[in-house]
Amino acid sequence: MNGAESMLETLVAAGVEVCFTNPGTSEMHMVAAIGASTGMRSILCLFEGGCSGAADGYARIAGKPACTLFHLGPGLSNASANIHNARKAHSPMINLVGDHATYHKQFDAPLNSDVIGLSEPVSHWVRSVADAPALPGDAAEAVAASGIRPGRIATLIVPADCAWNESVPPAETIVPSAAPLAGDRAVAQAADMLSNGRNTVLLMSNMALSETALELADRIAQKTGARIFCDTFVPRLPRGQGRPEIERLGYFAEQATEQIREAEQLIMVGTKAPVGFFAYPGKASEFAPEGADLHTLAAVHEDAEDALARVCDAVGAADLAPRLKSLELPEFTSGELSSRSIGVALARLLPENAIVVDEGGTAGSACFPACAGAAAHDWLMLTGGSIGYGLPQAIGAAVAAPERKVVCVHGDGGAMYTIQSLWTMAREDLDICIIIFANRKYQILQIELSRVGAQTMSPKTLEMLDLSNPDLDFVKLAEGMGVTAARATTADEFNDLLGRFLGDRGPRLIEALLP
Amino acid sequence: MNGAESMLETLVAAGVEVCFTNPGTSEMHMVAAIGASTGMRSILCLFEGGCSGAADGYARIAGKPACTLFHLGPGLSNASANIHNARKAHSPMINLVGDHATYHKQFDAPLNSDVIGLSEPVSHWVRSVADAPALPGDAAEAVAASGIRPGRIATLIVPADCAWNESVPPAETIVPSAAPLAGDRAVAQAADMLSNGRNTVLLMSNMALSETALELADRIAQKTGARIFCDTFVPRLPRGQGRPEIERLGYFAEQATEQIREAEQLIMVGTKAPVGFFAYPGKASEFAPEGADLHTLAAVHEDAEDALARVCDAVGAADLAPRLKSLELPEFTSGELSSRSIGVALARLLPENAIVVDEGGTAGSACFPACAGAAAHDWLMLTGGSIGYGLPQAIGAAVAAPERKVVCVHGDGGAMYTIQSLWTMAREDLDICIIIFANRKYQILQIELSRVGAQTMSPKTLEMLDLSNPDLDFVKLAEGMGVTAARATTADEFNDLLGRFLGDRGPRLIEALLP
Repeated sequence: MNGAESMLETLVAAGVEVCFTNPGTSEMHMVAAIGASTGMRSILCLFEGGCSGAADGYARIAGKPACTLFHLGPGLSNASANIHNARKAHSPMINLVGDHATYHKQFDAPLNSDVIGLSEPVSHWVRSVADAPALPGDAAEAVAASGIRPGRIATLIVPADCAWNESVPPAETIVPSAAPLAGDRAVAQAADMLSNGRNTVLLMSNMALSETALELADRIAQKTGARIFCDTFVPRLPRGQGRPEIERLGYFAEQATEQIREAEQLIMVGTKAPVGFFAYPGKASEFAPEGADLHTLAAVHEDAEDALARVCDAVGAADLAPRLKSLELPEFTSGELSSRSIGVALARLLPENAIVVDEGGTAGSACFPACAGAAAHDWLMLTGGSIGYGLPQAIGAAVAAPERKVVCVHGDGGAMYTIQSLWTMAREDLDICIIIFANRKYQILQIELSRVGAQTMSPKTLEMLDLSNPDLDFVKLAEGMGVTAARATTADEFNDLLGRFLGDRGPRLIEALLP
Repeated sequence: MNGAESMLETLVAAGVEVCFTNPGTSEMHMVAAIGASTGMRSILCLFEGGCSGAADGYARIAGKPACTLFHLGPGLSNASANIHNARKAHSPMINLVGDHATYHKQFDAPLNSDVIGLSEPVSHWVRSVADAPALPGDAAEAVAASGIRPGRIATLIVPADCAWNESVPPAETIVPSAAPLAGDRAVAQAADMLSNGRNTVLLMSNMALSETALELADRIAQKTGARIFCDTFVPRLPRGQGRPEIERLGYFAEQATEQIREAEQLIMVGTKAPVGFFAYPGKASEFAPEGADLHTLAAVHEDAEDALARVCDAVGAADLAPRLKSLELPEFTSGELSSRSIGVALARLLPENAIVVDEGGTAGSACFPACAGAAAHDWLMLTGGSIGYGLPQAIGAAVAAPERKVVCVHGDGGAMYTIQSLWTMAREDLDICIIIFANRKYQILQIELSRVGAQTMSPKTLEMLDLSNPDLDFVKLAEGMGVTAARATTADEFNDLLGRFLGDRGPRLIEALLP
């Protein structure tokens, strides 16, 4: 049994079932091992950023890691923007990066690069395999490293000879330890703060956004009057009918600071104190009101559900029933297509238990509030801020939950970073409906340009943020990759199309042409 | 004058005229400065790999650096595969990477990452600017660092506040020192080896592939009987009518070792000893015949032209006229479309002084030999082995030489990595004709799979190397981004189309559907 084969059996035995691949020559023995395996599904992407974004989406829905397969340093680089997003989402992921044979690296062949150096900034755990017998054990450790809650990026660099040389039998699965519990003092202090009558905000993310955790937080809110917020961008938020509502912190400093302006106390659960997405001249980076007391009930890696349950008990809220959102559907609009009309249609038509992948940008920002009272669904967000995450993320979510409809709301500018992902959706016949918000500009940047106080809004400056010369035709792009697509230019056309495409099974794309 | 403005004036004064941009919020002051400048042309790409590949192509043709503009760590990551290719081409390039404001980094906002760590593996020179007054001086140093011959990657990380705060006047241009001369002993030894009657090969790349250098090498070959080779992948090779011919080392070990099997002496000029692109089980990594004497006349960074001129004098070849290739055009073929029929048509129809960007892969490999006797042209190659270089490279070449026709021969698999580049070609109306070799597979990998001795060729394995489910429609993809395109399925259709498209001005794409 060669290294690649033993590695693969190790991964499969540890529960890793899917590999998002974009391989090259130095990975051929791993490709062959996957090809010979019945336990590992292989999904080909035409660009590595598709693989890493898909692995992130898979992890957020499946709750366990997929692996990826990349070709040396450049393959890893192409994947790294979406690894960054996954890292900020605390998603578990195992990257298998082929490298030159150990004895070949010294010759600095064209594809040679510092793979370890490229891995470290985007990974929590990095190992370059020493020889074939070490590979299965390293693979078992990679799985365990990725599984440290909420999840981590493990990058295993596999020199070609470590894959092709004779190895040892597969390694036993290493079970990662459970998330540590919040300390008693942290729990007691949170309970005290929640009972002292001061204006209090609970800010939650990551493991504090399970349905159970949300219900616990709602009980605490009912009992103590605290308000419950989630971060602006969270990995996954269960919401809609039958889920407790939670307020989302605004993107811009002036929104967020206003929302929590009156808070005298901030309690963080599964997250850290809120800060600005970017810095702006003359504006503060930190959002917490001046003088507010900040307290961390559960750090990102700690068991937030358990911490919330203990606080719930301590404040005497355990017997309360959580307040669950009822179905509240807005009315369809007619006439001009707008962000709001799209959001409304999505809310009305969203199927039960759908997954919404959100890279809607500014134009798509109406969807989230519009869907507050829609059928129960999960909302996946752009945690790391690197655009081009949405289409790959939708692939991974659809692979993890083939029985659920995935809706991907996407800005036109962001979609072009990883547009190749459409082909994988067609190839795998994934049940994904994509809505492209075609405003034909990097709208967020035109807004930011004025916000940062940049000096000129000259035609040459705006041209750098403009996508209208020439216009992109997303219908042709989708059809060119085997995805059925259509364009909507009015609200009525959009409502019809969305109803039809959500009723279909398989990948569909709507180009929503905004005025 | 803020930091961004002073930086920009510094760059322009140093001769940097083009910026390939894909900016975000943290770069808005640099965007505004470019927008207000008349000396810097801004070219927007929809993906950062387009910018870096374009900067590489620009440098290879213009002989000086362009700059790029990227958004924090993820933007740099997206650019890094083509920075890798540029690095291996020894192209000068200046990357401007926006980062969070200095005081904002501590908060680890969503887009925060280790930008220095991501820069170092792909750059020769990295600096993160300390404050606004330091920025212009750092920019001048970046230009100088990139200009060390043949060329280097300089990455300047610009925290947002260093761009927006008040700065000092633009910095004076720092002229990089000239390439050092080869040592007298190296020259004398080369001359001795060339005169000792033994079988000798000159292996050349980089600065040894100027027209002047090629003519000097040909004189030496005439006088001494030495054979002249270039590396398999070189940044730029002038060839065709009126240029001396040079043999190209084969890609596969068995080709290359056979070509130089009889060599008793190898003299390297502007390159190092030949090694395998990849390692293969049981095959040697080094290609030089066993026992051959290896000698470096000029290292990559040394003045190869000067070294060849001195050797030419020493062996008494200075008065010889170089043998220049005459026009030798193969006949058009008819009937089935094939790699060869495409190569033949290209050779016949290639306009005088064209630039050929070659990412043809296996299917396109007939083009290079077919064009040996075509009209004078430059051939640009994939120096770093990271596919997805061709379309961006063509952008940069066309921007550097608007009066020259650029032909881009490209594999279908590779083209999908940076397919967004087509939009920039349309936007800038670049005179580029693209030929996509649509064999609908990663053919090189199917070949390599057997070459590395991987065990299975199961349907599941081959599926990972296959692009036919669904078929990509490059005509629709091109039209979706504003590029006129058509498909050829026979040699006759192709010959007609190529003639027509090469006669047009502006971007055109032919999908050559191979059986």
